[in-house]
Amino acid sequence: MADLSGRTVAIIVADFIEDAELVTPRDELSAAGAEVRVYGVEAGSVQTVEGDTDPKQQVEVDGTLDDLDVAGIDALVVPGGTVNADKLRVERRAQEIVREVAESGKPLAVICHGPWLLVSAGLAKGRRLTSYPSLATDIHNAGGDWVDEEVVVDGNLITSRNPGDLPAFVKALQDALT
Amino acid sequence: MADLSGRTVAIIVADFIEDAELVTPRDELSAAGAEVRVYGVEAGSVQTVEGDTDPKQQVEVDGTLDDLDVAGIDALVVPGGTVNADKLRVERRAQEIVREVAESGKPLAVICHGPWLLVSAGLAKGRRLTSYPSLATDIHNAGGDWVDEEVVVDGNLITSRNPGDLPAFVKALQDALT
Repeated sequence: MADLSGRTVAIIVADFIEDAELVTPRDELSAAGAEVRVYGVEAGSVQTVEGDTDPKQQVEVDGTLDDLDVAGIDALVVPGGTVNADKLRVERRAQEIVREVAESGKPLAVICHGPWLLVSAGLAKGRRLTSYPSLATDIHNAGGDWVDEEVVVDGNLITSRNPGDLPAFVKALQDALT
Repeated sequence: MADLSGRTVAIIVADFIEDAELVTPRDELSAAGAEVRVYGVEAGSVQTVEGDTDPKQQVEVDGTLDDLDVAGIDALVVPGGTVNADKLRVERRAQEIVREVAESGKPLAVICHGPWLLVSAGLAKGRRLTSYPSLATDIHNAGGDWVDEEVVVDGNLITSRNPGDLPAFVKALQDALT
């Protein structure tokens, strides 16, 4: 695994986030040497779930979305979970963050239901991307080119469909960071 | 309250359906004399939730989506709940049902996250409607005219935003049935 020492990665989350889509990128990027910070809609902790509905654990966040300075990170991860993604997409600060990351050229890695935030932020248009299949119509209607692949890399945008795609998703993000 | 004797209303549901959006229309229309039947993606029962995530109760369904004959009903209700609506929208049979109801001119009452099914079925285009606010972008991108009102009636399409709108939502459906 490539050495990610000196790299900082942010993960943005709300309640009912899909556990593996938070924990796996966090732990694997940390193990590779990156500093990984989790930012929540609110301070404190978020409830993770498995399969969208089964409560798994509380995960403490390192700060709120307002604490996240895009200039200070090297990549952003947006995990899924239906309820998490539905909550994140309406947060103006979350929309600002993904717009800033998209414009910066830094890797923007979005998985499962996470791409709803790209739709709400107006970032899907003209991009080739994937997601959980229920979002395909929304992404198509937003002007995106939705494809059914385990990981899609379009410029600095990295997307995957579900927790089963996490190995390919994390590898693509690692490659983009090195 | 108007007498709904002789009227048959179907409600279509998946797991993690918002409790009040199933129970309130079911009980109020039944109390007015209507025969109300609940059809699930699967046979058996569905888990209801409050506020999208707190488990509330199991509700037995009267049949599956395949058992629902649109010719035999006078109106259809599509409740919300983020996870329920995300599951329903990808069911081909659910998409067929709402298309048949839309074409029939029978009342089609859709609340909260339920309008995702209209988006996936290609029914939002050119319609004036409301929903939970997180769907506003999706409905706009689908060609719908999204407005922020407690109940919107556009032809046979009746839509509302959230459980707080249920009194206006159920009244509009009752009016359409009489």
